[in-house]
Amino acid sequence: MPSPFKKIDSSDLVFFKSVLPDHVFTNEEQLQRCASDQTEDLNYVPEVVLQPDTVTEVSAIMKYCNGKNIPVTPRGAGTGLSGGALAVYSGVVLDMRRFNKILKLDKRNFQVTTEPGVITQELQEHVLAEGLFYPPDPASKGSCFIGGNVAENSGGPRAVKYGVVKDYVLNIEMVLPYGNVIWTGANVLKNATGYNLTQLIVGSEGTLGIITKIVLRLIPAVKHDLLLLVPFRSAVEACAAVNAIFLAGYIPSALEFMERDALLWSMHYVQATGISLPEDIQAHLLIEVDGNNKEQLYADIESISAIMQQYDTGEILFADSHEQKQMLWNLRRKVGEAVKSNSIYKEEDTVVPRAELPELLRIIKEIGKEYGFRSVCYGHAGDGNLHVNIVKGDMSDEDWNGKLPLGIRKLFKEVVRLGGTISGEHGIGLVQKEYMDIAFDTVQTQLMKQIKQVFDPNGILNPGKIFP
Amino acid sequence: MPSPFKKIDSSDLVFFKSVLPDHVFTNEEQLQRCASDQTEDLNYVPEVVLQPDTVTEVSAIMKYCNGKNIPVTPRGAGTGLSGGALAVYSGVVLDMRRFNKILKLDKRNFQVTTEPGVITQELQEHVLAEGLFYPPDPASKGSCFIGGNVAENSGGPRAVKYGVVKDYVLNIEMVLPYGNVIWTGANVLKNATGYNLTQLIVGSEGTLGIITKIVLRLIPAVKHDLLLLVPFRSAVEACAAVNAIFLAGYIPSALEFMERDALLWSMHYVQATGISLPEDIQAHLLIEVDGNNKEQLYADIESISAIMQQYDTGEILFADSHEQKQMLWNLRRKVGEAVKSNSIYKEEDTVVPRAELPELLRIIKEIGKEYGFRSVCYGHAGDGNLHVNIVKGDMSDEDWNGKLPLGIRKLFKEVVRLGGTISGEHGIGLVQKEYMDIAFDTVQTQLMKQIKQVFDPNGILNPGKIFP
Repeated sequence: MPSPFKKIDSSDLVFFKSVLPDHVFTNEEQLQRCASDQTEDLNYVPEVVLQPDTVTEVSAIMKYCNGKNIPVTPRGAGTGLSGGALAVYSGVVLDMRRFNKILKLDKRNFQVTTEPGVITQELQEHVLAEGLFYPPDPASKGSCFIGGNVAENSGGPRAVKYGVVKDYVLNIEMVLPYGNVIWTGANVLKNATGYNLTQLIVGSEGTLGIITKIVLRLIPAVKHDLLLLVPFRSAVEACAAVNAIFLAGYIPSALEFMERDALLWSMHYVQATGISLPEDIQAHLLIEVDGNNKEQLYADIESISAIMQQYDTGEILFADSHEQKQMLWNLRRKVGEAVKSNSIYKEEDTVVPRAELPELLRIIKEIGKEYGFRSVCYGHAGDGNLHVNIVKGDMSDEDWNGKLPLGIRKLFKEVVRLGGTISGEHGIGLVQKEYMDIAFDTVQTQLMKQIKQVFDPNGILNPGKIFP
Repeated sequence: MPSPFKKIDSSDLVFFKSVLPDHVFTNEEQLQRCASDQTEDLNYVPEVVLQPDTVTEVSAIMKYCNGKNIPVTPRGAGTGLSGGALAVYSGVVLDMRRFNKILKLDKRNFQVTTEPGVITQELQEHVLAEGLFYPPDPASKGSCFIGGNVAENSGGPRAVKYGVVKDYVLNIEMVLPYGNVIWTGANVLKNATGYNLTQLIVGSEGTLGIITKIVLRLIPAVKHDLLLLVPFRSAVEACAAVNAIFLAGYIPSALEFMERDALLWSMHYVQATGISLPEDIQAHLLIEVDGNNKEQLYADIESISAIMQQYDTGEILFADSHEQKQMLWNLRRKVGEAVKSNSIYKEEDTVVPRAELPELLRIIKEIGKEYGFRSVCYGHAGDGNLHVNIVKGDMSDEDWNGKLPLGIRKLFKEVVRLGGTISGEHGIGLVQKEYMDIAFDTVQTQLMKQIKQVFDPNGILNPGKIFP
């Protein structure tokens, strides 16, 4: 596409080097590293990679680029699944990896202030050492950055009980295109002071400003958890069983669904032993409960187990040792990578009201038949968030590029009809933007575009994302 | 002030009557009813009160008023504490009381869709009858509307464990000034699809659109609760004790603070018997725990009680009967009315990180001495939200209008210095807008004003609110 932006020239590089003497990169290795993320097989090569580590540097870069009409794409760890960190108009990738400090753990107030380039799991472990808990745990928690999590409003298995990233962000320091640095709110648990800029920034995918500090609320660490793996002979019935747990009054700390192939491929991928997958099993639920009262937990998991046995299930696996639990969680977390290693694929991030899951799964398979694609479904069934991995397999390139998008469009329309929407936790980014018209009409889209313009009048911030 | 808006004339009334034949009011009684809310002794008389009960009617009214430059102030039950529902430029009050239907209780999905004019407590009881729980419970829950709660992002005692209104709103149907009707999101528990318009509308105080439907998430009803009333000989120590509970790993379902006068005045106001207030007691904490495991609750409340006894406390009152609990909660809920019945007053809605409460209380009293005002403090200590009721008593009008605002300004500056902000749950509305510059600088304010302009280019929606 013809770029509406200025190409970077030697004078721009001179300026960047004046701000960041040792952290301006134009070598092939760095450009290529920042050319892709975990989304399909996309590749967009930036012109330069900048690695600032102070707010002042970010401010100077933004002001300069805004004045020169140079596009800036912020980048976290590159684990995104919607292409949000890709510089589709080239220009600058603002690589935030050096913003990697946990600035303050305020144990008295159950708050942590962190820079965006901290790995989520490291942040979790850091606060846990002080008896505190930051629950959101995307599958990529071992490598993703907290800043990317905030930008995409990530979820993960524990969202079903503890909520998603947005439920933990109290305040954000960000740099606007003109170089101004603002805080979006205050470090408080409740706030009725002006518009909620904080929640506007969470999930805005780097299109409104550059996040430089994040204040998160924390909760007391939870002492115990127990895990069940429940095999079902019918995948649709597994989805139906999800809701029975909630209707009985239980809120598990995780409630994950995996179709047979998801588990099977993951088992191969991680070379799992010690788990069997009988031929008649079509899907699994992975159910975790947590709390501080161990007896209560055992009673709860027994009740949940009894509810499950009202369905056509195989032998339920109960895990209470650390090793067993790790093994099962690892299988679940690796499904995405396993599918990726198997075939070219597209991952859709559908989300519906929880009770509509069985209907959603039925529709996915029906549309798959109609449009000739195979899908492997898994995800956070407890919040109605089903990842649909469409595998290319032996589909022709023509069908993959031409026919499949029509099938996805049909699927998303059904999702919206069920009260759901097109992304639960991955964001719209690049790969879902052509479907945004299904979720939002022109009035809503126009409001969002105008909000974008308020923050970024010249449109230099992560251009080409979210909006069709 | 000279109004930038058109006065309503007979042709406007003809139009309004064509839309709402029986619900256009210009009689003194209706105009006066809508001229005030629960904020101090303010009085702003509108020109006309309209009571639509369909989205189509709201749309027609908005489109007309927007075209004619007539200001529209939406009104719920008029229980607000920041003057948000007052028509400061006169014009139309859009009285939403006929939007009083609970449209759908989706028990399968733990969701309820309601119109905004439903009384919050009635909504709570309606969902509770089906075993579901909508936690946010402002003190005015018996008379306030859920729409007003959403507009102000209300809190209440249970916010400390369950969060505020924003944590329960999934989706909002609203009418924009040009008459367009939009939904802000989807009926899902997680959503990473475009900007979070839903959270932008929650707490926007009727300045961005007219809320016509609200989808709330619900949680399973909780079976048991227990209550403690803990008297302290030092009010600052009571504030310090709050944090000790959290540091020990407990999250009460309510943790309320009342200064001696707050409780005393409320006792007189409700003519409470069966509770004594020894002379050496300076403050109380009201502590509730809830859950489904009764034994665990008794164990928790005993532990909390033991933590409290490390401070200089009086005799702790333990309430487990329905009557006792009702009596104590009634005392707490009536504090606001009791103070109001005692004297002209101003209520500030300060909020700080929880552990800063003792310092906040100390500062309030110090500034009170300096500026010559007496204050009665109470509120939701568990989330650091302290209501500061400044009683006029025998303060001169000159000091009340001239000196006091300087004292409040100093207080708010201290609040912000402590990491807090100027409103936790009441909103900015009319009475706090002159202090907004303390919470936000010109860049932040400008962003908010421009967002306002995106939604309401002609500025007809609830003008004169939030922004100085």
